[in-house]
Amino acid sequence: MSFTETAAQLADVGRAFHARGWVLGTSGNFSAVVSRDPLRLAITASGLDKSTLSPADILEIDQYGKVMAGSGRPSAESSLHLAITRTREAGAVLHTHSIWGTILSDAAAEGGVAIEGYEMLKGLGGVGTHQHREWLPVLDNTQDWAAAGPQVETTLAEHPEAHGFLIRRHGLYTWGADLAQAKRHVEILEFLFEVMGRKRGMTWQA
Amino acid sequence: MSFTETAAQLADVGRAFHARGWVLGTSGNFSAVVSRDPLRLAITASGLDKSTLSPADILEIDQYGKVMAGSGRPSAESSLHLAITRTREAGAVLHTHSIWGTILSDAAAEGGVAIEGYEMLKGLGGVGTHQHREWLPVLDNTQDWAAAGPQVETTLAEHPEAHGFLIRRHGLYTWGADLAQAKRHVEILEFLFEVMGRKRGMTWQA
Amino acid sequence: MSFTETAAQLADVGRAFHARGWVLGTSGNFSAVVSRDPLRLAITASGLDKSTLSPADILEIDQYGKVMAGSGRPSAESSLHLAITRTREAGAVLHTHSIWGTILSDAAAEGGVAIEGYEMLKGLGGVGTHQHREWLPVLDNTQDWAAAGPQVETTLAEHPEAHGFLIRRHGLYTWGADLAQAKRHVEILEFLFEVMGRKRGMTWQA
Amino acid sequence: MSFTETAAQLADVGRAFHARGWVLGTSGNFSAVVSRDPLRLAITASGLDKSTLSPADILEIDQYGKVMAGSGRPSAESSLHLAITRTREAGAVLHTHSIWGTILSDAAAEGGVAIEGYEMLKGLGGVGTHQHREWLPVLDNTQDWAAAGPQVETTLAEHPEAHGFLIRRHGLYTWGADLAQAKRHVEILEFLFEVMGRKRGMTWQA
Repeated sequence: MSFTETAAQLADVGRAFHARGWVLGTSGNFSAVVSRDPLRLAITASGLDKSTLSPADILEIDQYGKVMAGSGRPSAESSLHLAITRTREAGAVLHTHSIWGTILSDAAAEGGVAIEGYEMLKGLGGVGTHQHREWLPVLDNTQDWAAAGPQVETTLAEHPEAHGFLIRRHGLYTWGADLAQAKRHVEILEFLFEVMGRKRGMTWQA
Repeated sequence: MSFTETAAQLADVGRAFHARGWVLGTSGNFSAVVSRDPLRLAITASGLDKSTLSPADILEIDQYGKVMAGSGRPSAESSLHLAITRTREAGAVLHTHSIWGTILSDAAAEGGVAIEGYEMLKGLGGVGTHQHREWLPVLDNTQDWAAAGPQVETTLAEHPEAHGFLIRRHGLYTWGADLAQAKRHVEILEFLFEVMGRKRGMTWQA
Repeated sequence: MSFTETAAQLADVGRAFHARGWVLGTSGNFSAVVSRDPLRLAITASGLDKSTLSPADILEIDQYGKVMAGSGRPSAESSLHLAITRTREAGAVLHTHSIWGTILSDAAAEGGVAIEGYEMLKGLGGVGTHQHREWLPVLDNTQDWAAAGPQVETTLAEHPEAHGFLIRRHGLYTWGADLAQAKRHVEILEFLFEVMGRKRGMTWQA
Repeated sequence: MSFTETAAQLADVGRAFHARGWVLGTSGNFSAVVSRDPLRLAITASGLDKSTLSPADILEIDQYGKVMAGSGRPSAESSLHLAITRTREAGAVLHTHSIWGTILSDAAAEGGVAIEGYEMLKGLGGVGTHQHREWLPVLDNTQDWAAAGPQVETTLAEHPEAHGFLIRRHGLYTWGADLAQAKRHVEILEFLFEVMGRKRGMTWQA
């Protein structure tokens, strides 16, 4: 798919996620692979209101994060998108800041969140049964993702089956073979975060 | 109604339910009877993003689940749609994966969920008063619905007055004489799941 | 305003309330005065899906609830609309079935719900300060509103300053000098029900 | 930007906030600077349904709150908009009445709400790290903002780094260098109010 078509699809995803409250206040960023060799990503510019995201707000960057097309500054988290694209062979990477993702990332006591036994898990790539246990690592937040790069890559390598990870009090990163699968992963994980978060507020536990 | 008209209506229902968060991440499936003799169902193909569901995404299947028209794979849960259509003489069957349906299915201790005393119950077919007690069986989840068919049929036969059932940590099945009634049943049951789920999170119980 | 214009405005209100989840599953009904002498109300027909409410779904009834124009059956609760219009000199009456209205009506221990000290209360007709105490009576539900008419009129007479009332496990009735004010009253009361309901789920009380 | 363009943008913001339930029942008001010398604000007229807010609903007022253009009455809270514009050198001031803002304003025990450690805080003007502690003062509500003016100005002066303040059981005031930044501040603070409010309802605290 061309950069232009990819940019239009990223803008659609961005507006839909803003409507759900998952990328309020210019938060969140989204990327998709335009070409593998040389590596080119279409990626949202930094600091945009996602409620009015348009194709003109999408940049093309190379494997070093250098802007090849479009105007605007890439997000400081572009290095995360590039690292995930490289190590997961992802076709798209989506990052959201949701209410329940924030709450669950904060509550995770042992370095991650376990989600197990829900039919919705079957929508994750390669998962064929609800009897799946998804383990999402939780990383500490930082403002220096260049320095944190090796730690992120180590975490990804240690959890080769994880479909995403949370950053504490910050949000979710997930990805997919293509943008449609990555969008599906966001919807599934955000749904499950809300189920688990709401159950914690109950006077009974199932 | 023709297959084409039915497909358009199923697509409308699908997009509306996605907007409410009841069929995120390609979850959910919907069917309606096109003809009774021979039996033909219009049914959503498997694995679709319901936010962009269109008539072209709807298949026509026969009584054995064989695709008679349209492209795509029918859901593994088509056998449930066929069984419900047959045993309940339903004109439409709708399946959702909502937050509150998932939570309530998980909390149900004694094989089902009882809902009693709410005005909203009057919207269920054949119910004329809020002084109605709706009992929704909860079935265990499985990935082999062909093998589970007899159990589903037994459950339906044991609860002839139930307007739906839940599958544990999975979602709701409900149906109606036609698609409008089935949609109404989804809205009513999802509403009541949310009322009951939220009450459990209260520090007081009414 | 003509019946035609009034019907169009009632349909707009209905679709907006359905979008918020306040009139799911064909619940809710809405009326507005077309003329005072003789009394004529524009009112929603019974059993309609409010997500697609159109002016053609609105009936004109007289003071006895007889249909003067339009096709369809008036709601069994038309007598409530007529009683409120008469005793409150209301220009419009709106009835919703919301999650939080249902929960609060159920929790009310002493025959009503008190709401006090919120700025939002200033939006109720004739209220000029947040230091207002709104008392909404809660009536028991029934399926015979003709027989319950005198009790409703007594309740309205006993609480001349109430801007609405709740029916237990059923929903809210409120009204206004015109449709715009009645809509405002719904939004304000539903907002305050949610604030109060959510506070009850907290581990602390303010 | 001209008054006409500013009015159109304020109307867009108003409708978007109404859709999220942040300005129900004619609550909320919004302003933006049209010129600094002489000071002219575009500001919403009092008592409007924000779901249908249009540029024609926006007034132009001078530094004393006198209407210079447009029809309608300015809000009694115009003096707050003028005070904030003057003391914060704000380009826009936005006031919302949300569920969670109301709840948090009510729960604040020591004169304010502290928000700390969330990535979302970085979206506030001048904040470059999640390791920021935002302190939002909570003022008591009043119906006499002219008399309360000095207290508001004192509070603003005592908390020069605050990006907003709450009025108890009433709502949020926040502002920005321009309307886009002020809108971002609303989204960020409302998001964080909801995160913090929901955590209080949990059976565990992170």
